[in-house]
Amino acid sequence: MESATLSQIGLAGLAVMGQNLALNIAEKGFPISVYNRTTSKVDETVDRAQREGGLPLFGQYSPKEFVLSIKKPRSIIILVKAGAPVDQTIAALATHMDPGDTIVDGGNEWYENTERRVSEASAKGLLYLGMGVSGGEDGARNGPSLMPGGSHTAYLNIHHILDKVAAQVDDGPCVTYIGEGGSGNFVKMVHNGIEYGDMQLISEAYDVLKNVGGLSNDELAEIFTEWNRGELESFLIEITSDIFRVEDEETGNGHLVDKILDKTGMKGTGKWTVQQAAELSIAAPTIAASLDSRYMSGLKEEREEASEIFKKEGLNEDINSVGTVDKKRLIDDVRQALYASKICSYAQGMNLLRAKSVEKGWNLNLGELARIWKGGCIIRAVFLDRIKQAYQRNSGLANLLVDPEFAREMVQRQAAWRRVVGLAIQKGISVPGMSASLQYFDTYRRGRLPANLVQAQRDYFGAHTYERIDLPGAFHTEWSKLARKARV
Amino acid sequence: MESATLSQIGLAGLAVMGQNLALNIAEKGFPISVYNRTTSKVDETVDRAQREGGLPLFGQYSPKEFVLSIKKPRSIIILVKAGAPVDQTIAALATHMDPGDTIVDGGNEWYENTERRVSEASAKGLLYLGMGVSGGEDGARNGPSLMPGGSHTAYLNIHHILDKVAAQVDDGPCVTYIGEGGSGNFVKMVHNGIEYGDMQLISEAYDVLKNVGGLSNDELAEIFTEWNRGELESFLIEITSDIFRVEDEETGNGHLVDKILDKTGMKGTGKWTVQQAAELSIAAPTIAASLDSRYMSGLKEEREEASEIFKKEGLNEDINSVGTVDKKRLIDDVRQALYASKICSYAQGMNLLRAKSVEKGWNLNLGELARIWKGGCIIRAVFLDRIKQAYQRNSGLANLLVDPEFAREMVQRQAAWRRVVGLAIQKGISVPGMSASLQYFDTYRRGRLPANLVQAQRDYFGAHTYERIDLPGAFHTEWSKLARKARV
Repeated sequence: MESATLSQIGLAGLAVMGQNLALNIAEKGFPISVYNRTTSKVDETVDRAQREGGLPLFGQYSPKEFVLSIKKPRSIIILVKAGAPVDQTIAALATHMDPGDTIVDGGNEWYENTERRVSEASAKGLLYLGMGVSGGEDGARNGPSLMPGGSHTAYLNIHHILDKVAAQVDDGPCVTYIGEGGSGNFVKMVHNGIEYGDMQLISEAYDVLKNVGGLSNDELAEIFTEWNRGELESFLIEITSDIFRVEDEETGNGHLVDKILDKTGMKGTGKWTVQQAAELSIAAPTIAASLDSRYMSGLKEEREEASEIFKKEGLNEDINSVGTVDKKRLIDDVRQALYASKICSYAQGMNLLRAKSVEKGWNLNLGELARIWKGGCIIRAVFLDRIKQAYQRNSGLANLLVDPEFAREMVQRQAAWRRVVGLAIQKGISVPGMSASLQYFDTYRRGRLPANLVQAQRDYFGAHTYERIDLPGAFHTEWSKLARKARV
Repeated sequence: MESATLSQIGLAGLAVMGQNLALNIAEKGFPISVYNRTTSKVDETVDRAQREGGLPLFGQYSPKEFVLSIKKPRSIIILVKAGAPVDQTIAALATHMDPGDTIVDGGNEWYENTERRVSEASAKGLLYLGMGVSGGEDGARNGPSLMPGGSHTAYLNIHHILDKVAAQVDDGPCVTYIGEGGSGNFVKMVHNGIEYGDMQLISEAYDVLKNVGGLSNDELAEIFTEWNRGELESFLIEITSDIFRVEDEETGNGHLVDKILDKTGMKGTGKWTVQQAAELSIAAPTIAASLDSRYMSGLKEEREEASEIFKKEGLNEDINSVGTVDKKRLIDDVRQALYASKICSYAQGMNLLRAKSVEKGWNLNLGELARIWKGGCIIRAVFLDRIKQAYQRNSGLANLLVDPEFAREMVQRQAAWRRVVGLAIQKGISVPGMSASLQYFDTYRRGRLPANLVQAQRDYFGAHTYERIDLPGAFHTEWSKLARKARV
């Protein structure tokens, strides 16, 4: 093939995400070769490129022809299921690739798998990137948020393409070089953990407004539309307002949201986030509460039985006796509670990223991560610009909560937040996410916690020793002996 | 050596726990050989055995002599630091051991390490037990709770010894064969996770009584003594009442508990419990909150700074304006809140054990596990007999909360529980454990959760599909199109 006719980049794995990303790249003017093991997907993608005005997208039907159709040094994005399929795809392509070529894995891969593949690729002279891609099908087609980590040289080879393909916001494209090794996947994993938190908090706001405030779906649609014009402006708030508008076409009766089974699926990144937080000694209770809520949502039959049992025991008489609420004030309170809870959740995610960055030497730029999440991805929100600014003001910020602007906002909203969680508790409406955020806030902002008692207990039964507030050193006390002495 | 003079069992690793367990075994009439790499520890142990009335304990100074001094089939307990030291000790001993001999690891080992060692031992014809030992130094000396898992044959070889050495309660010794593989270590790990929960909940009760109720240490000592006569009767409540009595001998001024730094240490089992819960799709928010609280207690300097920042922002004006409370009622409410929160925490731990048992085919007997925790261990409590009975009534109980007796107790206590958490929230006193328990309860007992909205969101942005409450199958909706339609 003549060098002039070679593609600038390749993409293997043509499920919806892969097709859309390939079309996006072609549309930005970069000739692209595409390949898929099941070749009908290749034809499908080529057809779509034709229908969308003849985009420069070229179907290939064997790994070898695919690789050879790309200009050197080659960059090939693969978008297949995480795990073994990635290894298989790499094996099929790598035999035809040359030293200096790059593989870019765009899936939700566990970061340690990427680190293994970085080494394996390096042994063959290949470069490797693990690139988080967020924004779903729509983002892939029209501008995702991209989180490439691994070889910096590999990033430089394609960053002119990524810059055009990514979502564009006021301060640039939603892509940046994340760091070495598996950092791109790790950052995407935490992004997803934060996404779990956002979705859980919104569902709790919905629950309280519906079941404490008695709001209808129409009212909810209006409220979320209104919220989307203020500090909560974000993709998830926007789609939530849409959701409350959709009628049930299946039965022609009522709103669709009421017909959906309350069992939530998941794909693993939320679980990893929670496990990594525990591993790195980072409290991430809001994200953990979101994961737990998904798990408990799955126990639908158990919950229904429990509900009957507790009804019979008379539980509902207590919680139903709580008086009526001022609807307008409740709506305003819930907005504030949602915002304050969200800040805590992001603080947890950001601190997890920093802890991992320190452990791995990734040198992550937290403000820049907030910036590339401003567009394209599921958690995109106006609010992320505020986070970017907070880290620009102080890159060593210990916690988002103590940034002067966020601190002020927390104080302004805390009374409403306490009212919402308190009321939900009285009414028996579970708000695990908002409540975890509030507990996080109230734990973090207290100079003195009752952990002194825990240390005393540990020293009592395990001689683990303790420190003092007034004297240096480690101390051990014969508690039971001294207590006996005090009693006489 | 003559067979008549051989020891019945051996113990290697003579730190305090090892010394105490060896003395306990000798005291029960079982001649025991002891060994430690640093031989001064051997002399120390032999001295102690002499001083305690000439117990049948025999010091050995080389691995070979140690092994050969034990009657075949030999059983050797090792009590060294988890991880590499266990492998080193096994290597030193195994060369001198014969097929059919057993190694019993009594440390807090990660269960997968035990599973690896079970296979490695088996390849040499050796048997292996991973045995959880709880009760601290005092338990080891006077009767611990023992959780041996691994080779059933190995268990049968020594169960007459374990039965005497373990703590004794009304329905037998606090030991049972747990199951195969690493089940003994796993059960001990969850025991420790539950212990984290208990300690956190007690520290929150203390925090609320002290900082909302204004109770003095003397009053707290009295309250915990009183609580230890009722449904909360347990080792941890008992030692807590002791702790509040102890004066500060260092300065001669005030109570010691007030001088202890509020930074909590930990050793890993709590972290593993939280990570395993996430892995197995089990919600364990109370245990997770306890772990997070230990992590956040460690951020002492950050917390002190945050406290100053929020004070300056005027946070305290809000939370200090809450009126005074009825002390007597608060004390009674906190007792109920503590008990209800504790039930939720145990429900989480038990469900984690069952999930792992199903995954690994361990066939764990949850009622029997509750029984062997009734004595000897740190979480020992009258309350565990109630848990035993609940599983005896129904071994397939989905959750402790729906056992008829516990369900009734929860309903009786829920109003007090909601008052305590609500008041703490108003006052800005963090109660992450009690609050996590309450959210767990309120989530589990609700037949309908707002997870329908989360599923709608996932279908909106990721085409993940959803189920319906009224029709079978998986559905996907073009949300944004239908919402647009509804708006016009």
